[in-house]
Amino acid sequence: MGTTILPDLATEILIPVCAVIGIIFSLFQWVLVSRVKLSTEKVAGDGKNGFTESLIEEEEGINDHNVVQKCAEIQNAISEGATSFLYTEYRYVGVFMVAFAILIFVFLGSVDGFSTKSQSCTFDSSKMCKPALATAVFSTISFLLGAVTSVVSGFLGMKIATFANARTTLEARKGVGKAFITAFRSGAVMGFLLAANGLLVLYITINLFKLYYGDDWEGLFESITGYGLGGSSMALFGRVAGGIYTKAADVGADLVGKVERNIPEDDPRNPAVIADNVGDNVGDIAGMGSDLFGSYAESSCAALVVASISSFGINQELTGMLYPLLISSVGILVCLLTTLFATDFFEVRDVKDIEPALKKQLIISTAIMTVGIAIVSWIALPSSFTIYDFGVQKEVKNWQLFLCVGVGLWAGLIIGFVTEYYTSNAYSPVQDVADSCRTGAATNVIFGLALGYKSVIIPIFAIAISIFVSFSFAAMYGIAVAALGMLSTIATGLAIDAYGPISDNAGGIAEMAGMSHRIRERTDALDAAGNTTAAIGKGFAIGSAALVSLALFGAFASRASISTVDVLTPKVFIGLIVGAMLPYWFSAMTMKSVGKAALKMVEEVRRQFNTIPGLMEGTAKPDYATCVKISTDASIKEMIAPGALVMLTPLIVGIFFGVETLSGVLTGSLVSGVQIAISASNTGGAWDNAKKYIEAGASEHARTLGPKGSDAHKAAVIGDTVGDPLKDTSGPSLNILIKLMAVESLVFAPFFATHGGLLFKIF
Amino acid sequence: MGTTILPDLATEILIPVCAVIGIIFSLFQWVLVSRVKLSTEKVAGDGKNGFTESLIEEEEGINDHNVVQKCAEIQNAISEGATSFLYTEYRYVGVFMVAFAILIFVFLGSVDGFSTKSQSCTFDSSKMCKPALATAVFSTISFLLGAVTSVVSGFLGMKIATFANARTTLEARKGVGKAFITAFRSGAVMGFLLAANGLLVLYITINLFKLYYGDDWEGLFESITGYGLGGSSMALFGRVAGGIYTKAADVGADLVGKVERNIPEDDPRNPAVIADNVGDNVGDIAGMGSDLFGSYAESSCAALVVASISSFGINQELTGMLYPLLISSVGILVCLLTTLFATDFFEVRDVKDIEPALKKQLIISTAIMTVGIAIVSWIALPSSFTIYDFGVQKEVKNWQLFLCVGVGLWAGLIIGFVTEYYTSNAYSPVQDVADSCRTGAATNVIFGLALGYKSVIIPIFAIAISIFVSFSFAAMYGIAVAALGMLSTIATGLAIDAYGPISDNAGGIAEMAGMSHRIRERTDALDAAGNTTAAIGKGFAIGSAALVSLALFGAFASRASISTVDVLTPKVFIGLIVGAMLPYWFSAMTMKSVGKAALKMVEEVRRQFNTIPGLMEGTAKPDYATCVKISTDASIKEMIAPGALVMLTPLIVGIFFGVETLSGVLTGSLVSGVQIAISASNTGGAWDNAKKYIEAGASEHARTLGPKGSDAHKAAVIGDTVGDPLKDTSGPSLNILIKLMAVESLVFAPFFATHGGLLFKIF
Repeated sequence: MGTTILPDLATEILIPVCAVIGIIFSLFQWVLVSRVKLSTEKVAGDGKNGFTESLIEEEEGINDHNVVQKCAEIQNAISEGATSFLYTEYRYVGVFMVAFAILIFVFLGSVDGFSTKSQSCTFDSSKMCKPALATAVFSTISFLLGAVTSVVSGFLGMKIATFANARTTLEARKGVGKAFITAFRSGAVMGFLLAANGLLVLYITINLFKLYYGDDWEGLFESITGYGLGGSSMALFGRVAGGIYTKAADVGADLVGKVERNIPEDDPRNPAVIADNVGDNVGDIAGMGSDLFGSYAESSCAALVVASISSFGINQELTGMLYPLLISSVGILVCLLTTLFATDFFEVRDVKDIEPALKKQLIISTAIMTVGIAIVSWIALPSSFTIYDFGVQKEVKNWQLFLCVGVGLWAGLIIGFVTEYYTSNAYSPVQDVADSCRTGAATNVIFGLALGYKSVIIPIFAIAISIFVSFSFAAMYGIAVAALGMLSTIATGLAIDAYGPISDNAGGIAEMAGMSHRIRERTDALDAAGNTTAAIGKGFAIGSAALVSLALFGAFASRASISTVDVLTPKVFIGLIVGAMLPYWFSAMTMKSVGKAALKMVEEVRRQFNTIPGLMEGTAKPDYATCVKISTDASIKEMIAPGALVMLTPLIVGIFFGVETLSGVLTGSLVSGVQIAISASNTGGAWDNAKKYIEAGASEHARTLGPKGSDAHKAAVIGDTVGDPLKDTSGPSLNILIKLMAVESLVFAPFFATHGGLLFKIF
Repeated sequence: MGTTILPDLATEILIPVCAVIGIIFSLFQWVLVSRVKLSTEKVAGDGKNGFTESLIEEEEGINDHNVVQKCAEIQNAISEGATSFLYTEYRYVGVFMVAFAILIFVFLGSVDGFSTKSQSCTFDSSKMCKPALATAVFSTISFLLGAVTSVVSGFLGMKIATFANARTTLEARKGVGKAFITAFRSGAVMGFLLAANGLLVLYITINLFKLYYGDDWEGLFESITGYGLGGSSMALFGRVAGGIYTKAADVGADLVGKVERNIPEDDPRNPAVIADNVGDNVGDIAGMGSDLFGSYAESSCAALVVASISSFGINQELTGMLYPLLISSVGILVCLLTTLFATDFFEVRDVKDIEPALKKQLIISTAIMTVGIAIVSWIALPSSFTIYDFGVQKEVKNWQLFLCVGVGLWAGLIIGFVTEYYTSNAYSPVQDVADSCRTGAATNVIFGLALGYKSVIIPIFAIAISIFVSFSFAAMYGIAVAALGMLSTIATGLAIDAYGPISDNAGGIAEMAGMSHRIRERTDALDAAGNTTAAIGKGFAIGSAALVSLALFGAFASRASISTVDVLTPKVFIGLIVGAMLPYWFSAMTMKSVGKAALKMVEEVRRQFNTIPGLMEGTAKPDYATCVKISTDASIKEMIAPGALVMLTPLIVGIFFGVETLSGVLTGSLVSGVQIAISASNTGGAWDNAKKYIEAGASEHARTLGPKGSDAHKAAVIGDTVGDPLKDTSGPSLNILIKLMAVESLVFAPFFATHGGLLFKIF
């Protein structure tokens, strides 16, 4: 035990300062992006208005204001579609939010019969803590705060992305480097804004709650867990609804456009094209933003709630207590530095520089962050402290905790690289999949599925090692900080992740605006790298979700006063096997939803092609709005069942079967879900890039398979279409499933421990 | 405690008598099948020779001896191919068997330093038991016995099936009812022979071992577990090699024949057609026979080893001790009675009678068996006894044990029906999948995968309930007898399961022999029902595997003196998550193997079509042997890696990480593997029947999708091809994976407990 080098006051100042720096940096990037002028207004004169760089070497159309105007129009349409969808989604989700907030209040309030009297603390019964009713009130408030922050994160991400799309397209006229910087900067805006915002809100909430709780840190951080629940439950709906939206549109557009009508992707004649582009922004951007924000919020909450019953909480050591937030704060600074490597220190000049530039981001941020963690662990932790380990206090050295955070951080990097290896068409796995298209779609699907299954091996070992190291050193606190370690470079992770859909949309806009083939080739190159980074981002999201949910599960076990979860008991075992089934149930729902919505979309697109004269010839405009409506309606309707499955399972199991069975369910869904999530997103990523590999024809081998329209290419398109719901709907939603069930169990733990297990009590 | 109604002597007589009755019944069925004459000899005279029924209404070709001769030739070719493949496989597997036998002897012998001195018993240290060296010797012997019995089971099954194929084809000329009876009887030959043989060998082994062990039942039944390990390890290689063989040939034949050359399935012009038909016999028949024999052997061993440390073993109550074998004995009698319902009491007159007749088999056997179990539980169990429950003795009433067996039995039926619902084209799930072919292969694959995922829900609940009931009543002994309950009707299960590939082959032979379209339609109808029963059989295999491996895991835990397996410890948790990954790793290997082998097959088939003049016109014969060789070589080569993964994992984990981590691995692979296995086999079955649904065109809806060669049908063929390795290679191998790792851990438990966990001992 002992004091820390960093005084408490400095901690209190450092955290908000880092958050504010992150926000300022994000705004600065925004300003840089917004320098690319985009306007729907007609311009009188020579058409060179609005361009400050008219002296640079003139490329085709670079000074053509009509193109700028067209891009602006398309961007407006996409932005409006996305905004209107998100408003619709938030209206429905808002109802749920209020209802669930009431549920939290009632359930948690009922633990002690809504008594307003102080009670003895759970882990130190000699002290008096705030009443259970206070936990109910503050948990409800933090739930709402988390939900709102999550919604705002997703919304802002979408706004930034739709702001940047057309600008990236326009910059692509000047070269691939310019386009890359614009797309990457826009991603950074989102990354930093979300990371800093999440940190700041959490920090302010803790300080405000402390005004009431005072010395009762146990109660304070118990209530804070609601923040994680709020964040993740919004993320669930965001991911599911967004995922269904984007893939219904994408699959529908491709099946009729590319396969039947043989028109290019994103062709403006395709009635589903606007819905498809809107989908990228609401699914891949807003959904992913909410998701990673949720992971961040949950891992922070898990670490804090475990810390509150360790020596930090018991001895009221503020700096040690806020160690998780300090890690995130330093993470923002590290990511800021890392970003400069992509935008200022080095330059992307050529297509082949793109992937290395993005990869370097991961390596650099991880390397610098390792130093950052070492420093924080040194100055913000006493040399030795104790943490709660299921009933006993366990001593931990500060270097051990450094290793816990570090192992999470590096495991993330390994997962990232393995994901890249299995989804980038620069390596043999994807090339093998592309090669299997030679014998048709069936072998393509078989090889793709096998690739996805295989790609789980190393990530699982990486996760297992992280768990073993951090668990052995510091029990559940170790796991929680390992998750935080993996997420400490979240700003960079989000930046390169958001970069993908932005580039994808930029390509779409180029196609729709009728820009030249060269522009499209550049944005395609950006997009191919984006597919890989999207897969890497998903890898991070899944890896961190595994650690986070284990940490949350540990916190739940502590809070529900469980000290062993014995597989050799029937209650636990049935939980395990049923829990392992839930990801399948959930995936069945989401995939079927995408399939059904896509069928509707196909029918509508076919109808338009058949009934609107002149559509194929490009003389008539398609009815984009109907397609947008189909995607919107389908996703709103179809998000309810999978959402209910995830939100109700912990409640039903906890209430009727009790905390042991619930522990089994959480463990089962964790160990099973993480595998499906990884394999689904890698399979999908690989198919997408196998198709791109054939289309690009960049090697001798690739050219024997292509060109576009060849039998092998058609087989590849089928694989890509199958992969769409796997990689963008069910896969990424699964990590929310495992996290959300864990955090929900944690929040309701006192209720389950008191009133749960009805069935076993009756019989 | 108390005596049983059934005296020990009666038990000793009853078991072998039932086994012998089963064998006699099986031979009787064989005689009936062999009455259908089949000969390659030329016949002089009017060609009506050899037919006793020449007076029945003459159908086309019924008295044409040329057809008989042609069928006989094809059957010979298939039989020779299958025999030669199995010999090759057994040669390789024989080497492994010997090596592994040595390993068992050395590892188990080393537990007590190869000492020949008696040691105090593990669970009753006041008594003296036989030395560890004896366990080593007898485990090795029983391992070899189990392996040989498994090999013989598979081989006999294959011989019976290839004996019956052409006879079914010939009978199809007389009507669908005759063909059905022939196919079903042949299945029954296999079912009864395997069930009775497995029981008899086990019974004899126990009695022979008792000559040495005398009163040391603990040691005796420990050694007997080797029987299960032997059975299952052979089954693994049989399933994997057979699965790769059959699907490489099937996929290869279909991709070129059906998709590229547009010739029907099983067309004799297709060079891979013989390999394809051989594959059905070595994969679906021999592999499945070994698999279910393994399940049966393992569940018996698990029940016996747990019983040996319960009051039966401690008080030397023979009848109670042999209760598991009595259940199986009565099962044979019940199945015998049930078979008569299909062959004698009712008659299949029409295509629409086939599925109900097979379904009735399941229901009738389950219903009668319930009574059988009740009687056995009443006469062979004392009204109350104690069983070992991880360190404590737990009292069990005989009616509770009846419920344990019963719940397993009925869970099997439920799993069977759910499987039927999701894989038969009489119900909406498969029809929806067929409908999704309208928009192409991609939606077909998406819907099929979603169907497979969804189909796990009810089976998992059924398994969970069985586990909960039997675990609560009688701990691991309850689980073991529940598994036995599910397998008690194994003779019927195997009969209807083997019926499928026999019908499939019969259709193939009809096509190859150039028989009329009407004959092919009849065999197709048999085959469609066969696809569903094959899926049901797989459902049984998987459900029982889940229960068996849990029981084995429990026996392992007892034997390794583990009393809790706590998820909240790092050692166990990393085992869990890595264990849950293993089925993915394994599936990746097997699917990739099928894909690779299929690619080779495709190239060879294409080569033959391109280089052999007159092949397409039917004037030249293809080179069947090369295709057979490709399948053989590929399957032998590719079975090694997945086999090694399964066999080495428990050894490596046990030796380096110890029994806690191994417990985690077993649990993880169980709860994750069972889901993938169910979803994989149902997805595959559904695709196959969706294709058949479109081909048959039996409803208004089906006709809008067809006919053969339509776009929807092409999409359905792609789904079917993707499903092949899922349903016939990776899916069914997974249940062996989970069982085998558990039984292997059980056999090596004393070694791991003594010398295991090296890594943790070092650090």
